[in-house]
Amino acid sequence: MIVSEKQSASPALDLDGLFDASSVAVIGASGKPGKWGFGILSIILMKKGERKVYAVNKRGGEVLGLKAYQSLREVPEPVDCAVIATAAEDTAAVMEDCVHKAVKFAVLFSGGFSEVGGEGVRAEREVAEIARRGGIRIVGPNCMGHFDAYSGFFTLPYKLPVNAGEVSVITQSGNSGIGMLAMLHKVGLGISKYVSSGNEADLHFEDYLEYFGRDARTKIVLGYLEGLREGRRFLELASTITRDKPIVILKAGRSGEGAQAARSHTGALAGTEAVTAAAFRQVGVIRVGEINDLVDTALAFAGQPLPRGRRVGLLSMGGGLGVISTDALRSHGLEMARFSEKTIEKLDSVLSNRWSRGNPVDPAGDPRPYPCIWPLLEDENVDAVMVVGGIGVVGGLATLLPVHPSLEGEYAGLMQDAEREELANFDRLIEMRDKYRKPVVIARTVSGVMVEETSKVFEKMQQHFMTPYTSPERATRALARLVEYSEYLGIA
Amino acid sequence: MIVSEKQSASPALDLDGLFDASSVAVIGASGKPGKWGFGILSIILMKKGERKVYAVNKRGGEVLGLKAYQSLREVPEPVDCAVIATAAEDTAAVMEDCVHKAVKFAVLFSGGFSEVGGEGVRAEREVAEIARRGGIRIVGPNCMGHFDAYSGFFTLPYKLPVNAGEVSVITQSGNSGIGMLAMLHKVGLGISKYVSSGNEADLHFEDYLEYFGRDARTKIVLGYLEGLREGRRFLELASTITRDKPIVILKAGRSGEGAQAARSHTGALAGTEAVTAAAFRQVGVIRVGEINDLVDTALAFAGQPLPRGRRVGLLSMGGGLGVISTDALRSHGLEMARFSEKTIEKLDSVLSNRWSRGNPVDPAGDPRPYPCIWPLLEDENVDAVMVVGGIGVVGGLATLLPVHPSLEGEYAGLMQDAEREELANFDRLIEMRDKYRKPVVIARTVSGVMVEETSKVFEKMQQHFMTPYTSPERATRALARLVEYSEYLGIA
Repeated sequence: MIVSEKQSASPALDLDGLFDASSVAVIGASGKPGKWGFGILSIILMKKGERKVYAVNKRGGEVLGLKAYQSLREVPEPVDCAVIATAAEDTAAVMEDCVHKAVKFAVLFSGGFSEVGGEGVRAEREVAEIARRGGIRIVGPNCMGHFDAYSGFFTLPYKLPVNAGEVSVITQSGNSGIGMLAMLHKVGLGISKYVSSGNEADLHFEDYLEYFGRDARTKIVLGYLEGLREGRRFLELASTITRDKPIVILKAGRSGEGAQAARSHTGALAGTEAVTAAAFRQVGVIRVGEINDLVDTALAFAGQPLPRGRRVGLLSMGGGLGVISTDALRSHGLEMARFSEKTIEKLDSVLSNRWSRGNPVDPAGDPRPYPCIWPLLEDENVDAVMVVGGIGVVGGLATLLPVHPSLEGEYAGLMQDAEREELANFDRLIEMRDKYRKPVVIARTVSGVMVEETSKVFEKMQQHFMTPYTSPERATRALARLVEYSEYLGIA
Repeated sequence: MIVSEKQSASPALDLDGLFDASSVAVIGASGKPGKWGFGILSIILMKKGERKVYAVNKRGGEVLGLKAYQSLREVPEPVDCAVIATAAEDTAAVMEDCVHKAVKFAVLFSGGFSEVGGEGVRAEREVAEIARRGGIRIVGPNCMGHFDAYSGFFTLPYKLPVNAGEVSVITQSGNSGIGMLAMLHKVGLGISKYVSSGNEADLHFEDYLEYFGRDARTKIVLGYLEGLREGRRFLELASTITRDKPIVILKAGRSGEGAQAARSHTGALAGTEAVTAAAFRQVGVIRVGEINDLVDTALAFAGQPLPRGRRVGLLSMGGGLGVISTDALRSHGLEMARFSEKTIEKLDSVLSNRWSRGNPVDPAGDPRPYPCIWPLLEDENVDAVMVVGGIGVVGGLATLLPVHPSLEGEYAGLMQDAEREELANFDRLIEMRDKYRKPVVIARTVSGVMVEETSKVFEKMQQHFMTPYTSPERATRALARLVEYSEYLGIA
């Protein structure tokens, strides 16, 4: 647990060599599945490219087709980055080797340091001191790796599906970080840079934040945070960065017991709940309550224009869903837009006289969502649109198939027509959304559960970061975050 | 909108003929995919069995291989149940036909009644009055069908995956009900009886509740509720039923605008929020906030022994997950159990000296969850166990595969061994859970996202209603409902 308040006037930190090392050595490399030194090396090799990769294992021999050097000192060429997965007690000696080799960055997976207290705290200080002496910057210890999806340098222990994109992640929990990555991929979001910061013996959450703030490929910063080591610096950085890109933070350790668990996890001191909340709000940091929430919020920021107010036009393909969704919107402080007379007229011309004639728009059985969306986007009393159900269902036909085998041929034709029509409608939806600069969030419900996630419509939704949320409540929460940020920026 | 306060002393309502009609006519039957009269008839035919099924369509001819009678009166044999999907304006005449044929039950899909106000209210009264005169009990109008998964009588418009089981559902929203069914199936829960009650012109939420309360196959009642027509009767029924089986209700229309939307949906008057909450609590009704919550809670009640207290032993396969989960448990008023000395000793003997030595149990890298669970179940200071991550991952190997192609053969063997071991461990988990009568809720995280949902382990989890929750927050919320009910019954 190393707590300090750095001067924020220090020169900009350069972590380029960490995220795109030209030569890397894995210390504790292993050929045995299940060992971290195996996972890490295998994954580095998968996207090797021009990068030089060396395996170090004190038993020597060969590991995954590479010569295994018994010590880092034996590696004949320069090593920029050392990835260390040895036992805690061996780490100081390994760090001395790193100094000897003039390594620039070390990623320390090894645990058993400050998070276990007592001797671990002293051992961590020792390792950090050796590194500092050699000018080596450390990620970790007790971390689960880092990567840059553009450079292809991955130090993860697991093979995860990751596409290059615009979200960067800083996490003080390796497992939560890996969960985040899996979920981000599932909704179609790509990553720029990722780091599991571990015990932060040297590089802090704030350092990565500064670097990601400057990274042109990073459009959204997500953080899992247990405690800040440089609170003032964090707030200064955040207040600058949030002018350009949203920072979304899950602050864990909110309860007394949670904070205690955080101490024995990464040795971080969780600040007072109320102080954190107020400080974050002041610098425009979006604070969320769970990992799903982080991912949902990132999705909204990736895909949507920022709303100019909190008045929502709600289209619910089902009356009950409209009631539930209205409850959700109101509970997040969003407002139900009052439609203009013109909007009511437009909807009258599209829908049967049984529609709800108000907000939420309940088409009362009419299965066509799109003609109801256009008037809402055009209405100047509407700042954002939420659609519950209906989209991505391929005209409701998917849900019927195959109720009667005698009609299978007929179905196939109908499905194709419906899919073609829906794809065209969805293109228009994106156009309209961008023309009117109003966010459109989609929630799945009934139909969503059954919609094939590999359908062309779903694929298109993912491409445009319009992946449906799994409930009206989650869609609402994400929309409320957009409004919050918009209000901070003075747009709403 | 027909509001009345019935006498609760009336004789027990017999709906057997509704849920297992021996002869049924679909009025408005259609051969055209997309029409409700098509979906409904197709689905009735799929599980026809000995049931006599008649198609009625005023244009005559043939529908899905059946002769289509131009009027119900032409059907040569008796009809017990009429399923009506005609236009609102034709429904009164159809109901006269039903009276003429001495039909006992009518399921009215047709909309355009009290939910649209004005003329619709009068039309609904007229239809209800005709039915009352003929002694016909009505489901709906403006409903989306009903079924009994044991009798095989389904009047749904869509083909949904439904297994027979112990959950019964009453819903005032057809779409929300269908969403519920899809989600219940996804987590492995089967259904006994289901009804979408629509506008409740005749049969009310309370009637179905009374009937499901007596149904021996119903162990859990789920309700989506916008408004009660017989509040006092509901509370009387609930106070009796909750002694035997949990009633879990999603009360929609909590916000002012939500309540307004409810009025134009099913014409139900949503009661005051605070009054509802207090009244529900008094009769042991579990109140939830969203559809996911309904399903999560049903899953907990289906699979778990009732806890004897609120002290939770938490095993988190990852430190950050432990922090998040502790926050979640505390925010739901659950307590972090203080382990006995013996439990600490047992865990010491299993885990490396890096484990957290407290609650949450963080094995600090040890990937074996089961040896950590047994001591928690055995500890008398623990009332319930929550496991976050680790289970269903097949020893963590699934996540590694296939990082290095050269090892594929080796992996396959390791995976098989791991799966065999995990299946045996899971069997023991069920035994231990039932022996100590302590609920064990499982949350997926990182690994969960990647676990194959068709794996044998996942299948076994579903069979035992131990399907993992998709986040620690959702697992916690479900566990808190168990504790709430347990406390109501005086067990906790």
